[in-house]
Amino acid sequence: VRTIDINCDLGESFGNWRLGADEEVLPHLTTASVACGFHAGDPVTMARTVERAASLGVAVGAHPGLPDLLGFGRRRMEISAEDAYTYVVYQVGALKAFLEPLGVPLNHVKPHGAFYGTLNESPQLAEAVVKAVIDTMPGQPVLYWPGGVEDKALVQAARAAGVAVYQEYDPDLQYLPSGMHVVERHKAPLAPERAADLVRRFLLEGRIETRDGDTIPLSADSICVHGDGATAAAVVRTIRDVLAECDVRPQRATGAPGTARPPA
Amino acid sequence: VRTIDINCDLGESFGNWRLGADEEVLPHLTTASVACGFHAGDPVTMARTVERAASLGVAVGAHPGLPDLLGFGRRRMEISAEDAYTYVVYQVGALKAFLEPLGVPLNHVKPHGAFYGTLNESPQLAEAVVKAVIDTMPGQPVLYWPGGVEDKALVQAARAAGVAVYQEYDPDLQYLPSGMHVVERHKAPLAPERAADLVRRFLLEGRIETRDGDTIPLSADSICVHGDGATAAAVVRTIRDVLAECDVRPQRATGAPGTARPPA
Amino acid sequence: VRTIDINCDLGESFGNWRLGADEEVLPHLTTASVACGFHAGDPVTMARTVERAASLGVAVGAHPGLPDLLGFGRRRMEISAEDAYTYVVYQVGALKAFLEPLGVPLNHVKPHGAFYGTLNESPQLAEAVVKAVIDTMPGQPVLYWPGGVEDKALVQAARAAGVAVYQEYDPDLQYLPSGMHVVERHKAPLAPERAADLVRRFLLEGRIETRDGDTIPLSADSICVHGDGATAAAVVRTIRDVLAECDVRPQRATGAPGTARPPA
Amino acid sequence: VRTIDINCDLGESFGNWRLGADEEVLPHLTTASVACGFHAGDPVTMARTVERAASLGVAVGAHPGLPDLLGFGRRRMEISAEDAYTYVVYQVGALKAFLEPLGVPLNHVKPHGAFYGTLNESPQLAEAVVKAVIDTMPGQPVLYWPGGVEDKALVQAARAAGVAVYQEYDPDLQYLPSGMHVVERHKAPLAPERAADLVRRFLLEGRIETRDGDTIPLSADSICVHGDGATAAAVVRTIRDVLAECDVRPQRATGAPGTARPPA
Repeated sequence: VRTIDINCDLGESFGNWRLGADEEVLPHLTTASVACGFHAGDPVTMARTVERAASLGVAVGAHPGLPDLLGFGRRRMEISAEDAYTYVVYQVGALKAFLEPLGVPLNHVKPHGAFYGTLNESPQLAEAVVKAVIDTMPGQPVLYWPGGVEDKALVQAARAAGVAVYQEYDPDLQYLPSGMHVVERHKAPLAPERAADLVRRFLLEGRIETRDGDTIPLSADSICVHGDGATAAAVVRTIRDVLAECDVRPQRATGAPGTARPPA
Repeated sequence: VRTIDINCDLGESFGNWRLGADEEVLPHLTTASVACGFHAGDPVTMARTVERAASLGVAVGAHPGLPDLLGFGRRRMEISAEDAYTYVVYQVGALKAFLEPLGVPLNHVKPHGAFYGTLNESPQLAEAVVKAVIDTMPGQPVLYWPGGVEDKALVQAARAAGVAVYQEYDPDLQYLPSGMHVVERHKAPLAPERAADLVRRFLLEGRIETRDGDTIPLSADSICVHGDGATAAAVVRTIRDVLAECDVRPQRATGAPGTARPPA
Repeated sequence: VRTIDINCDLGESFGNWRLGADEEVLPHLTTASVACGFHAGDPVTMARTVERAASLGVAVGAHPGLPDLLGFGRRRMEISAEDAYTYVVYQVGALKAFLEPLGVPLNHVKPHGAFYGTLNESPQLAEAVVKAVIDTMPGQPVLYWPGGVEDKALVQAARAAGVAVYQEYDPDLQYLPSGMHVVERHKAPLAPERAADLVRRFLLEGRIETRDGDTIPLSADSICVHGDGATAAAVVRTIRDVLAECDVRPQRATGAPGTARPPA
Repeated sequence: VRTIDINCDLGESFGNWRLGADEEVLPHLTTASVACGFHAGDPVTMARTVERAASLGVAVGAHPGLPDLLGFGRRRMEISAEDAYTYVVYQVGALKAFLEPLGVPLNHVKPHGAFYGTLNESPQLAEAVVKAVIDTMPGQPVLYWPGGVEDKALVQAARAAGVAVYQEYDPDLQYLPSGMHVVERHKAPLAPERAADLVRRFLLEGRIETRDGDTIPLSADSICVHGDGATAAAVVRTIRDVLAECDVRPQRATGAPGTARPPA
């Protein structure tokens, strides 16, 4: 039976500020990417998120971001390769420390927001981040990355270093004709019915819609929903329904990337 | 031969701001307590400090603090037990992630500044921190703690949980007659000759000077120098000389706390 | 006709994190206390909040807090008198800069959260804050302060310096028999019907309920609702209704403190 | 007699971290640009710096930066025009609040570090910052800006809005052949003798050296020294000597920009 991962960015509250419907979303996921305190998240939020995910059997990855709480990590910053390496090591290490007492291994690393854009473009930063993933996930380094950017710096650096890259489809983001998506500081919420249409087409045809209404092929190991979207909980439930309808089983990605992918 | 540990708080720079003569101090230490980003330190500083310590064979501990860069972690904050647990786990985890690729184990955890005072007084916070140390140093949890406070909450909680507590003597701090020392936001620098006198008396007589000029007995496994003192490098060199003069070998504390202590 | 001020703490969002139903609450207020970036708020939020308040004719005060975003300014911190003075000057100055281009004068200063508790107890910090208010509101310094604490440090320091202190009744907080209220990091939401009962009694009898169910006398120039309460908008609307029912006109406090107060 | 302003970026300490030889530099300046807490500086540092400058008769400007303490405001960030406007208003307002009790007017606004680069390129951000200067310095808005970038966005926006732009020569920075200088996160210190040569040539010939050893013409109303340079105090003293030698009087820039400039 065909399988696909369902992933959501969680743990993006900060102190007294709540963000995302984490409690409603979590039970429907196979994997969670948890914020690590730089763009969002804080130690208390991380501990609670990790514990809840573990108790539900949801795999946990680290979602490191740029050090910009005020901009939610969605503003490009001109960081150095040493910054990039150490920011990832620091954040991933902090998250792992909450997982270890629970006996749960770290599933993956997935750079957040504007960090993503930078890592598509700069081979130096991409190599630094790949090294950070290798150093913090010895033996089984795994990156999550948006699909459609096979030729970009991070993907190339990861492949060169033997790091598995599972690719995502983000139905709640706008895609350019090139296959790249757009990082915005605030997102318009996605209607669940629209999510259903997008995910159905992706599963059945291996195609997604771009911002200008065309479709392009995209293959992915995971469907990702952003936890700060106002409709995230409804969207995730809808995606589960569409998976059931299409006879695709939600399951954490394992093995060689691409093996669980829908046919293009 | 009698041994004693020499320990210094290091890695307390932040971004472009330098603090401490880390490079001059490090070669004279047996152990370093490295700031983890909450009261001081940042990912780049941590990576560089850890690498330098490892290359010199200096053992590395974590020096977690309160989340107060502006006050350098030297202002009491009314945190909860959940805050205390998660702040330590987060910071220790982040530091461990820089040690792991070097194959260097974490030596100890030593709470910084105003965190220390709080943990002397609150059994709830003390238990939370002891649990954090156990969870992040499975198998061999070790706390560094000032001497003279045997009856205080943190020491009691650690002993109850079987966590080793190595005690320190801080010649650059002011001691009260009770044996507790005073945490100040800014420290007056210690003259190296004065450091020599204080450490010599400590080694030979097992006694230290209090703020009002009396002496009290104090036993300790480690002599600690604060890296932000203007004379830290000279003080550490002087202490090495006094140790040689007194035929005490500088060596990382191991085994049961107290076994390396000078006779009281 | 008898009048009373209705005040709410607003502008407590931070970056992408929303807090409070500011847009629904604002039209029902006579005065707003706007966060200034230390415990909550950020420049964009401040600019938008001030502009909206000004366009509705709602008077604007500054709501400076302790530098603790993670704890929402609700954790005591051991700050110095120099810290206290400069933190207030900095925050009030920042807020005034958004008011000046609109030609709107600053109405008052109201310390937030754990800052309040500290200022009740420390004469040194209280004097420092009173001086900061005088220095940033030359000619007409005004503090907002909870009622029931006439004998406390801040009120005494303000009176000694000739600074007007308008006192508040906070129906969404718990009161101790002493008349002091309790600062909690998270508040239980207040049911609008309960708010109506509390405010009605306050207006008609000059009495409020304590945490243990007794009533005590309290006089106040303003009724305050906290913007981060989940029911804040409904509570404020209800208070307007109770005022109308009791024939009390909502109006910004002016003149000598106490002149608009309900009879005790 | 010919005059020129001597300006230095000051107040760039943060909490316990000291940066710059402010006390030695201040007496030799005619103008200081004071950090406002976003890239450096904090309320206590601002209060002390402003008070010291006022007592020495040194004019004070605001030196607002990007919200990036970790990068000292020297990393580009993709901020919006609303961010740019409100970040400047907030920081300038905070600084003005320390000046007002001393009866000292704000002399100018000078964007810091990577903010500068951004404002050269983006007309939207440049217009937002010019509006912020007009709104916070009503009647007499003044910007300080590096020389050699007459055609850039900020200068054009300021001129279009009637805001005076005094231009600087920065002998401790590297210049490109285009006349733009390079913003680096860490600067190599400038030798005082080299400073003397550079400033002498600038005063006598109206020319400066570029990174590749050529000279280009540059006119400026102010000579600027960066306070975080290790040799800043010696450099400023040397510049005073060169001014005396060249019969140029150090004096705050007033009147139309360019009137005090050395002949090109």
